Amino acid sequence: MKKVAVILSGSGVFDGAEIHESVLTLLALERAGVKYSCFAPDINQLHVVNHLTGEVDESDTRNVLVEAARIARGDIQNVAELNADEFDALMLPGGFGAAKNLCTFAVHGKDSEVNEDVLAACKAFADAGKPAAYACIAPAIIPAVYPQGVKLTIGTDASTAEALNAMGASHVDSSVDGVVYDETYKVFSTPAYMLAANITEAAASIDNIVSKLVAAID
Amino acid sequence: MKKVAVILSGSGVFDGAEIHESVLTLLALERAGVKYSCFAPDINQLHVVNHLTGEVDESDTRNVLVEAARIARGDIQNVAELNADEFDALMLPGGFGAAKNLCTFAVHGKDSEVNEDVLAACKAFADAGKPAAYACIAPAIIPAVYPQGVKLTIGTDASTAEALNAMGASHVDSSVDGVVYDETYKVFSTPAYMLAANITEAAASIDNIVSKLVAAID
Repeated sequence: MKKVAVILSGSGVFDGAEIHESVLTLLALERAGVKYSCFAPDINQLHVVNHLTGEVDESDTRNVLVEAARIARGDIQNVAELNADEFDALMLPGGFGAAKNLCTFAVHGKDSEVNEDVLAACKAFADAGKPAAYACIAPAIIPAVYPQGVKLTIGTDASTAEALNAMGASHVDSSVDGVVYDETYKVFSTPAYMLAANITEAAASIDNIVSKLVAAID
Repeated sequence: MKKVAVILSGSGVFDGAEIHESVLTLLALERAGVKYSCFAPDINQLHVVNHLTGEVDESDTRNVLVEAARIARGDIQNVAELNADEFDALMLPGGFGAAKNLCTFAVHGKDSEVNEDVLAACKAFADAGKPAAYACIAPAIIPAVYPQGVKLTIGTDASTAEALNAMGASHVDSSVDGVVYDETYKVFSTPAYMLAANITEAAASIDNIVSKLVAAID
């Protein structure tokens, strides 16, 4: 049975993993006959956003791994324990958590740094030539993992694309359910909620990238 | 366009709305051509459970509406503002939040009481003869909404079924993706994660009940 590791970044679009994308990723993987395992970094979130008001709650602190466990129904491990040898592929759904907790792209733009445990995990898949998929804003991590010129998409946002190009990537515009594939490095990306106007469009994007990721497993 | 109101109970299986069931509900409704609107009560959760350890975090307090907003991507309203006249049907996904926040079934069993705003909303749909669907443990709310003898299912758990019968319901055992329908009161129920062993089984349960709910709209 094929095995895919999924790295989550919390639980909630504004400060963690995008919940729809994450759930649809798990469903698509399982429906493709894949066994998934969830991981997240054991660190505090950049901040906590009240998802009703959209405002940062300065009085609150939450842990990325503990919150991501909500999406994983408790079945999740510290990403520092992710051993790429045990998996065939890697998948990262999006949400602001990918750019706030897994790396600092939301704050530092082109000077973004990736959490060291997340970076080590992603590089292990890249170094082993195993396919990986990044959805929504998670492709902001790709330039730190792969060599200069790696192809990726975050949709069509010009300033975000410019920042990723400044980091060494080669951004390709994409429709919401399109998948950009870098054949050299076996890395997939798709816009999902960077462009999706509703959950049906997000599902089309996630279903498409998961299908291509699973097909790329040797 | 048909409109369905969805009542959520937080965000996370152990203290709120079951995230997979909730997301799959929204997707199934939208794919059925329905416009959904999310609601939740503006009250504190019974408690906060650390979903990594499974333990109650006594130091934390969270609001049901604010946390449910994570699943709804911020697009959610206080259930006290739910006007049944504006909708064709009602849907409640499960998770312990349905039995801890929407009513007190998790604590008081057969002596459970339903939050007054939730009860008023559910009764408005019942009184108008509009169909409603309750998944997982959410059917624990049904006996307070409908007359004695109303048919429902929470799967096959004997002690839970016994408590619901003591509250005036008529429990019918069901497989994970089965849907029990009370034709008199137009109320549907399905076990979902009361029995589902994985997200694929939960999706079959939710897809089935949503399909039947939408078909029952006049």
